[in-house]
Amino acid sequence: MRNVAVIGVGMTKWGELWEKSLRDIFVETALLAIEDAGVDRIDSMYVGCMSSGLFIGQEHLASLLPDYLGRNPVPAVRVESACSSGGLALRQGFIDVASGMSDIVLVGGVEKMTDVNGHEATYALGTAADQEYESYHGLTFPGLYAMMAHAHMAKYGTTREQLAMVAVKNHDNGSKNPLAQFPFKITVEGVLGSVLVADPLRVLDCSPITDGAAAVILCPSDMAKRMKKPAVRIAGSGQATDTIALSSRKDITWIESTHIAAQKALAMAGRKVEDIDLFEVHDCFTIAEIMVSEALGIVERGQGGKAVQEGLTSLQGKFPVNPSGGLKAKGHPVGATGVAQAVEVVKQLRGEAGARQVGGAKLGLTQNMGGTGGSSVVHIFEAE
Amino acid sequence: MRNVAVIGVGMTKWGELWEKSLRDIFVETALLAIEDAGVDRIDSMYVGCMSSGLFIGQEHLASLLPDYLGRNPVPAVRVESACSSGGLALRQGFIDVASGMSDIVLVGGVEKMTDVNGHEATYALGTAADQEYESYHGLTFPGLYAMMAHAHMAKYGTTREQLAMVAVKNHDNGSKNPLAQFPFKITVEGVLGSVLVADPLRVLDCSPITDGAAAVILCPSDMAKRMKKPAVRIAGSGQATDTIALSSRKDITWIESTHIAAQKALAMAGRKVEDIDLFEVHDCFTIAEIMVSEALGIVERGQGGKAVQEGLTSLQGKFPVNPSGGLKAKGHPVGATGVAQAVEVVKQLRGEAGARQVGGAKLGLTQNMGGTGGSSVVHIFEAE
Repeated sequence: MRNVAVIGVGMTKWGELWEKSLRDIFVETALLAIEDAGVDRIDSMYVGCMSSGLFIGQEHLASLLPDYLGRNPVPAVRVESACSSGGLALRQGFIDVASGMSDIVLVGGVEKMTDVNGHEATYALGTAADQEYESYHGLTFPGLYAMMAHAHMAKYGTTREQLAMVAVKNHDNGSKNPLAQFPFKITVEGVLGSVLVADPLRVLDCSPITDGAAAVILCPSDMAKRMKKPAVRIAGSGQATDTIALSSRKDITWIESTHIAAQKALAMAGRKVEDIDLFEVHDCFTIAEIMVSEALGIVERGQGGKAVQEGLTSLQGKFPVNPSGGLKAKGHPVGATGVAQAVEVVKQLRGEAGARQVGGAKLGLTQNMGGTGGSSVVHIFEAE
Repeated sequence: MRNVAVIGVGMTKWGELWEKSLRDIFVETALLAIEDAGVDRIDSMYVGCMSSGLFIGQEHLASLLPDYLGRNPVPAVRVESACSSGGLALRQGFIDVASGMSDIVLVGGVEKMTDVNGHEATYALGTAADQEYESYHGLTFPGLYAMMAHAHMAKYGTTREQLAMVAVKNHDNGSKNPLAQFPFKITVEGVLGSVLVADPLRVLDCSPITDGAAAVILCPSDMAKRMKKPAVRIAGSGQATDTIALSSRKDITWIESTHIAAQKALAMAGRKVEDIDLFEVHDCFTIAEIMVSEALGIVERGQGGKAVQEGLTSLQGKFPVNPSGGLKAKGHPVGATGVAQAVEVVKQLRGEAGARQVGGAKLGLTQNMGGTGGSSVVHIFEAE
């Protein structure tokens, strides 16, 4: 397998982009990545998107997007694994370049979520759960993560305030990210006083509905040396699955798929979690970031709440988590999220992250997951 | 890149499978492929599915299907490119094994289309067209292919009877395939007298709505030699895209994406189209097979109608096309079709195709496409 590097990244402002369609958002973002990489050709494309069928009545993005990017007849693939679609698209692009099949690969993620009403969006997102054993019975993701939060609080003593601190930290970081959907600070009191969604989760514990896209350009590491920006190598890639239904899990306070994916990615990179300078993780709900920090091995089981309370995962902490603002403040266009995580890590490793820069960062990790952890994808990035 | 072989295939009876859900159909079929290959492990999975979101309210098949197959935490990917999702899943599995990332890969395709009514199914299938410039204005696929048929008839003198002969040939072949949805013969008069769908296409020119799945197991060629069944090597893989909207094409009588994908696959295999012993192609409508036979280079432009009339593409002809019965008689569960084409070619190259066996077949080709040719995938298979 060939070594693979990221040579270009692109992202546009996320939010409720009513004046733009999915194809517009994708093309704008892809062009930024192509410009950043300085390449004049694309050998193949991968696009992560969760449910353009339900959100905008459009499948076949593998034809639509190269078409609107003016890149036909380039081969293109749409990859879906619910909210980990973007991370999985990155992994498929990585495998394509590593294999020798393609040299210059565009990996994008996109979701246009605001063309439907809230009920329809909730239905579309619910298709990431088990339709027959969860969604059909009325379960939605706030409810599923609320159960996980209750279990974690009962088992480990995680507090309601610690959940809030995840949101506060990520909004602190996001306030330094001009592309974030909600680039402003919030307070613990604000979270605790926000409207209840599914006990114990309140609206400020939840990532929002977002329109957005992100893109990166990959190529073999030896070719990357001749490109205009400093190359960032993808040193490790790991993916794992778990049961789709929460009720089938042994322990709903633990995300096994993330644990396995991280172990694989770290092993491929020849690194330990202690070596990592910053993390972009899947904080679709505040409890998710707490559980992911445990599954990645940043802290021991049950210590994720305490970690955020003590500042371990803050921008100035030993293990900064979600310097970009995370899904919470940056937004969560589901299929785009995994690619946007890679965009943030590459910017950090290049020293281009502005006010939210983690000083001297050399190694970064992204963790993207689908459903309640039915699928997880982890990548390790290393400045070259 | 490593050489890659197919070492196991599986397919179950296709049709209106009201007593089974998507997960049932997939698991039954995957288990047949695993049994056929005689393997006791799977390193990763790829699943082609066009629109489980719209058909059954279920995305995240990359978690659901390894779960129900009892294979968590194996990495899994759902691939979508409308009706070429299956062919594209095969290509991604091929790249995965070729790269060295995985050794034993399960590639499946599945679609459950009969849980919705006809109007909903037409809407779901229409998401393969351009939502903003085609579907929104009322265009559906019978209408789009009817325009292609009219243009082909006007430009090349292709006759209404020649269209019918494609359906008759494929039902002749399908009558010898016990897994086909419609394993019986039809006549030219029967086609011409069947109900009009979109002039000139009648219902017997159209592939049906089908529930079904198909699966294959891949591994590196050197490992394949130790497996229980004769290995079939994937000698070439090509993919190409074109504009999603028919109105953007230079010539609507020609499927450029199939032409380019075939040229790439043949070049990789070091073969010419004349070397191929049998073809499984995407006859979603009778006119499609005619146009594909031209794009592949089996005949010159405009000669596809004449080819079927003269028997060139019949089971006993020089270039047998769709010995399985094709989409027309075998059925067309959209995401499964591309994988089922590979199943048929492998059975033919192993000499296991029974009454529809093409004698002495050594080389086979599959061609799978999305929409009106917005994406195409071609593979070349060679008996080892």
